[in-house]
Amino acid sequence: MREAHVFREKQGIDLRTGHRVERIDPAKRRVAGVRSDGGRFEVDYDKLLLATGASPIVPDLPGFDLPGVMVLKTLDDGRKLKRFLGGQHVERALIVGMGYIALEMCETLRTLGIDTAMVKPRPAFLPWAHRKLAERVQREVEENGVRLILGQEVLRIEAEGGALRAHCTEEVVDVDLVLVAIGVKPCSELAAEAGLELGPGEAIAVDRSMRTSAPDIYAAGDCADAYHVVTGEKTWIPLALRANRAGWAVADHISGQRVSLDGVAGTSVFKVFDMQVARTGLTAREASKAGFDPVEVAIEASSRAHSHPGASALLVQMVGDRASGRLLGAQIVGREGAAHRINGPAVALHQQMTVAAYSQCDLAYAPPFGPTWDPTLVSANQLLKKLEDG
Amino acid sequence: MREAHVFREKQGIDLRTGHRVERIDPAKRRVAGVRSDGGRFEVDYDKLLLATGASPIVPDLPGFDLPGVMVLKTLDDGRKLKRFLGGQHVERALIVGMGYIALEMCETLRTLGIDTAMVKPRPAFLPWAHRKLAERVQREVEENGVRLILGQEVLRIEAEGGALRAHCTEEVVDVDLVLVAIGVKPCSELAAEAGLELGPGEAIAVDRSMRTSAPDIYAAGDCADAYHVVTGEKTWIPLALRANRAGWAVADHISGQRVSLDGVAGTSVFKVFDMQVARTGLTAREASKAGFDPVEVAIEASSRAHSHPGASALLVQMVGDRASGRLLGAQIVGREGAAHRINGPAVALHQQMTVAAYSQCDLAYAPPFGPTWDPTLVSANQLLKKLEDG
Repeated sequence: MREAHVFREKQGIDLRTGHRVERIDPAKRRVAGVRSDGGRFEVDYDKLLLATGASPIVPDLPGFDLPGVMVLKTLDDGRKLKRFLGGQHVERALIVGMGYIALEMCETLRTLGIDTAMVKPRPAFLPWAHRKLAERVQREVEENGVRLILGQEVLRIEAEGGALRAHCTEEVVDVDLVLVAIGVKPCSELAAEAGLELGPGEAIAVDRSMRTSAPDIYAAGDCADAYHVVTGEKTWIPLALRANRAGWAVADHISGQRVSLDGVAGTSVFKVFDMQVARTGLTAREASKAGFDPVEVAIEASSRAHSHPGASALLVQMVGDRASGRLLGAQIVGREGAAHRINGPAVALHQQMTVAAYSQCDLAYAPPFGPTWDPTLVSANQLLKKLEDG
Repeated sequence: MREAHVFREKQGIDLRTGHRVERIDPAKRRVAGVRSDGGRFEVDYDKLLLATGASPIVPDLPGFDLPGVMVLKTLDDGRKLKRFLGGQHVERALIVGMGYIALEMCETLRTLGIDTAMVKPRPAFLPWAHRKLAERVQREVEENGVRLILGQEVLRIEAEGGALRAHCTEEVVDVDLVLVAIGVKPCSELAAEAGLELGPGEAIAVDRSMRTSAPDIYAAGDCADAYHVVTGEKTWIPLALRANRAGWAVADHISGQRVSLDGVAGTSVFKVFDMQVARTGLTAREASKAGFDPVEVAIEASSRAHSHPGASALLVQMVGDRASGRLLGAQIVGREGAAHRINGPAVALHQQMTVAAYSQCDLAYAPPFGPTWDPTLVSANQLLKKLEDG
């Protein structure tokens, strides 16, 4: 293994692939498990990092273990899917789930010319998004030939003459491939069995220095929770930047640096066909749950100045707190200018800025890139009015 | 005049075009001037707004008044230029100046197939930009067939057989059109003559509510100065968003609302050919002048994730203050993802965030839009290291 060589020879890391840890003993500072050759092993530690990640959720229903029913989390999952698409004649696919991985995959499958349907039990498409924004994204997906089966569950999958038959609540869908993308769960079983405290979503609870409830055991990555910078409470939003940042923070902390991470704003973006979908912070519903008194606006602006050709619509949602005037979250959808534009509001959330303060920001303007008032300023101005009128 | 009708009938505004104000009498609260028909007029006011804008600087040198030597500020200037380009056979153009208007125009002229040269007295291209960023933009401009004549002044222009001959310090350039774009100056003469205080760049000095030094006289737009959110000092950075925002602020203030504007961060962006050039806050040189102890980095990142095709280089400069750790400014150059990415650092400047605090921000990531660590975070991390090492 080339990676093993690099780790061992170049970086002095004793990389042991093919080893499954089955038990952590925090009192003895020891982990124990089994090697791929069947032999057992034990390792003592001074400091232990749990970086077990998350794993895709697969419903415990008949047929979800059939060949041709796949998930997509690891590189190996990707390779397996690619091999399947290359080796079989895949004409029709069903994606179970409509989150960002599901949506990114539907674009890929359509690009390959595959008839694609998506199914989910809840009737709302992108339920976290403002209705206007969700509708815009839904239209984009449907206009690209994806059939959305909303409000139906997949009850079972059957092998049917070399293909797959998915029995949904109200219809039967015949396909060659089923991709299950209904979300992930943290791999926190080992930690739980060792008596470590768990947080939201059963992720491993960590403090701002990534320390778990057990001495000298850290957790980082999709398996660990985080503080939310808007609520100040624990949350579990497994995304790449946080995972990566938490890993560095553990290394720094173990090396003796005082590292303390602020937490996450839940900033994310994905692309589906020609649509960019970005969000940061809380939805109105999440804000209510967290004890805020949310006020929400959604505005439509242009992605370029009036005078500039090639503009498209940019939809911006913003939510603020009536009591404090704080900005709590933002969402942006559009063909251009959504992805990086979310970062202004994201920085604002880290600073617990009010909507009024955000509305004063001096943001960039040039005709090819937006109207004079950045669309996030337009939404902030509207939200401010609504907060003041209340 | 259709505009006059809309103003008078629909909005109840007594619009008087063709009236030139020649004198303000703050004591009598009266303005006086001359109409286009030669008659004189006087108007008394309760509140007066000076929104006189800025005008292009034209050197007082021989030949700058010749036909075919043009400026570009007003809509009329644009129409005149368009007529000239449509009516004459313009094959060669010289642009005097290399600021953002000059650069936007060189793209337009090249798109029309016109041989274009640009000339400026200082040897540095984009002197405010970090050398690496400036070089990248310069290459883009030159690769698009624009000849840059750096370090030369235009001494005079002569009419020469239906064309124009520009005598520069070391060479002679024969063209059909000369476009003068060396900057603007605030139209503050009226205000100065009325005894109003002027600020940086001779712009009309205003407080955070756009009030000048004279009672009941406001100024807004490119003619007025502003506070800089980084230095807290007065500055004059005439840009569209501030001008527009200041106009609204005056209207609100006159209507009895307590309006106070934070000021400007100097956030700006322009596009030249396929390059986006964005900045916010102070350059290292400006930071020194303002009394900071600046530390600067410039990093190169990718505009998309490693695994994503179609990536290009994104250059990010950042400057911080050694003493306070504050972020003082940022610059971003690239083919994609520069324009809106500057807004994160811009918001940070409004909040006087430290580089350390910015480096903790949860910014958006998806493979089509950037690497896991947003390039502004990469630069913040590098800058943080440099600040700490110092």
